[in-house]
Amino acid sequence: MPAGPGTAVVIGTGLIGTSVALALRAAGTRVWLSDADQGAARLAAGLGAGAMLPAEGVPGGPADVAVLAVPPAAVAPALASAQARRLARCYTDVASVKERPLREAAELGCDLASFVPGHPMSGRERSGPAAARADLFAGRPWVLCPGQRTSAGCVAAVTATARACGAQPVRMPAAQHDRFVALVSHAPHVVAAALAAQCARAPAGALALAGPGLRDVTRVAAGDSGLWAEILAANAGPVRQVLLGVAGQLGALAGVLEEIAAGRDESVKRLVDLLEAGRAGVARIPGKRGGPAPSYAVVQVVIGDRPGELARLFTAAGAAGINIEDVRIEHSPGLPAGVAELSVRPEAAADLTAALAAAGWPVASAP
Amino acid sequence: MPAGPGTAVVIGTGLIGTSVALALRAAGTRVWLSDADQGAARLAAGLGAGAMLPAEGVPGGPADVAVLAVPPAAVAPALASAQARRLARCYTDVASVKERPLREAAELGCDLASFVPGHPMSGRERSGPAAARADLFAGRPWVLCPGQRTSAGCVAAVTATARACGAQPVRMPAAQHDRFVALVSHAPHVVAAALAAQCARAPAGALALAGPGLRDVTRVAAGDSGLWAEILAANAGPVRQVLLGVAGQLGALAGVLEEIAAGRDESVKRLVDLLEAGRAGVARIPGKRGGPAPSYAVVQVVIGDRPGELARLFTAAGAAGINIEDVRIEHSPGLPAGVAELSVRPEAAADLTAALAAAGWPVASAP
Repeated sequence: MPAGPGTAVVIGTGLIGTSVALALRAAGTRVWLSDADQGAARLAAGLGAGAMLPAEGVPGGPADVAVLAVPPAAVAPALASAQARRLARCYTDVASVKERPLREAAELGCDLASFVPGHPMSGRERSGPAAARADLFAGRPWVLCPGQRTSAGCVAAVTATARACGAQPVRMPAAQHDRFVALVSHAPHVVAAALAAQCARAPAGALALAGPGLRDVTRVAAGDSGLWAEILAANAGPVRQVLLGVAGQLGALAGVLEEIAAGRDESVKRLVDLLEAGRAGVARIPGKRGGPAPSYAVVQVVIGDRPGELARLFTAAGAAGINIEDVRIEHSPGLPAGVAELSVRPEAAADLTAALAAAGWPVASAP
Repeated sequence: MPAGPGTAVVIGTGLIGTSVALALRAAGTRVWLSDADQGAARLAAGLGAGAMLPAEGVPGGPADVAVLAVPPAAVAPALASAQARRLARCYTDVASVKERPLREAAELGCDLASFVPGHPMSGRERSGPAAARADLFAGRPWVLCPGQRTSAGCVAAVTATARACGAQPVRMPAAQHDRFVALVSHAPHVVAAALAAQCARAPAGALALAGPGLRDVTRVAAGDSGLWAEILAANAGPVRQVLLGVAGQLGALAGVLEEIAAGRDESVKRLVDLLEAGRAGVARIPGKRGGPAPSYAVVQVVIGDRPGELARLFTAAGAAGINIEDVRIEHSPGLPAGVAELSVRPEAAADLTAALAAAGWPVASAP
């Protein structure tokens, strides 16, 4: 990891704050932790994320950087408080909206020269310090939105902080950030919630037929409604624009279906076109981070449902000197056997298949 | 598996047809395969799904059951053709809409007494015979929609066929099936497509910020537009009803955001309520098939990125006599270590944690 700040304060030790602290510690930064919930801060400290920030402030004077890892509405007050206490020379936040906290900070009279608004594009379904991971930001974009008044020194310090966490800093104006995340994060949450709401009043017999498609489409809507309402409210204009676009597209699709239901079969062509627009959009979304890259080959092995079966499988793979990059087990309820899908580098797939077959495993390359 | 039919014909050897054939073969059924694409039928036969159906018909007379595994619009013609050739005593299909093929079959003068419309609620992102799996239907619902004229003997034969595939037969009227799948399968596809279409014209810089949420919500929209247009067209009325409900919910959400953008902060409470309706819906959707049930406990272990590491881990677990139900590896690019998440029965979690810790593994229970 590139060198990060020598010292940092992390205000707010939830998932993101604690993960930043763990990443900075791994990069050699001395980290001080603070949270309105003392228990959360102590848990983060116990995980090795840093030391508790003393009430009298940072020992030895201001830290290089303070990271405000608090919800959007709390950013401006936290910044005002931290600056009043002179906790650091430069400040950044991690909130998922940027214009409104910046405006509120200006209204509170904060020093904007030392504040570099930021947003690491990482998250997990779990929350809280115990879910934190030092590698949460590895390879992910980390948006920075310095304004015209922001000091070059603080931009450099906060950029180095993002890099030290393994992230890729991306600079853009705050308004552009807010429009972008409205499209890729906030509106998808609302769309998922609007669809899921139809399931809230559906017959149980209908939901019993649900497969992975419905679960995928609605999953994000399980998030904390209070936190999400705060995020959406802070980015209301841009989110509304995307929602109107989606609603318009849905209206067009419903109109075509009405024509088809009325017997106008030639409208099916327009239906295909509307679905193709969706496919084109999906194709533009970058692939999954962390999981097996598309370039991995997958070898499928039938495994029994008994202790030691996976150990025997991996022992056979290890004996052949092959590193398994990822493993996924497909296991149907009530069946005695499952399928282990082993992801390996493509050049190792043939060797692995041969080694497992020689050891008596039922094995096949995935289609 | 329960006893299936003694003999069966499968017309259409794509993913579903070949999977049915594999499952029936495993249950002891003699299976004959046919597909307009001879290569697909030969591939299925090569996978062990059965023998090629001779041009002159089923050797030894009609089969017990013929499974028509063809797209919705092809069901009625395939049924008429199969009945004209007297391929079987009873017939079923697997199309994802039920009313329209049934109406078309009646219009073609098919014998409806021997036809039991069916729909196994299974699928994969992959298609074609090579993606087929004998356990594709294990534990999944298989909807059957016999009408008043359907013979009891054929209902019994097709029910036994579904059971022999490991599925759970569920009976309901065709119209109810179509309304149910409009909600849990067809409309979600359209909603995903409508959102994804917004990404088709978005700046690349916006999509670079996308995380797993957007990918989850839009993933199903990557499906074959031609096949999906056919499915949606065949179920146009019920799908349209769900879409209008979603569009209405989106309109309400956009309206609340407009109020919030205009400064009416008290509207945030209504936003929370609308999001809560989505959460309530998600909570009603049954959990993932095959994956770890919600009742499994997860034990997290830090593992190195080298051959044999997983073998050592599973050997340690196996030595403790603990059966690992599922494993997931989280591995960030560029980092030397990853985290293996082991799902075990809750009562085994403490033993596994202790056994792994004793063997020197860095281990923790998941939050």
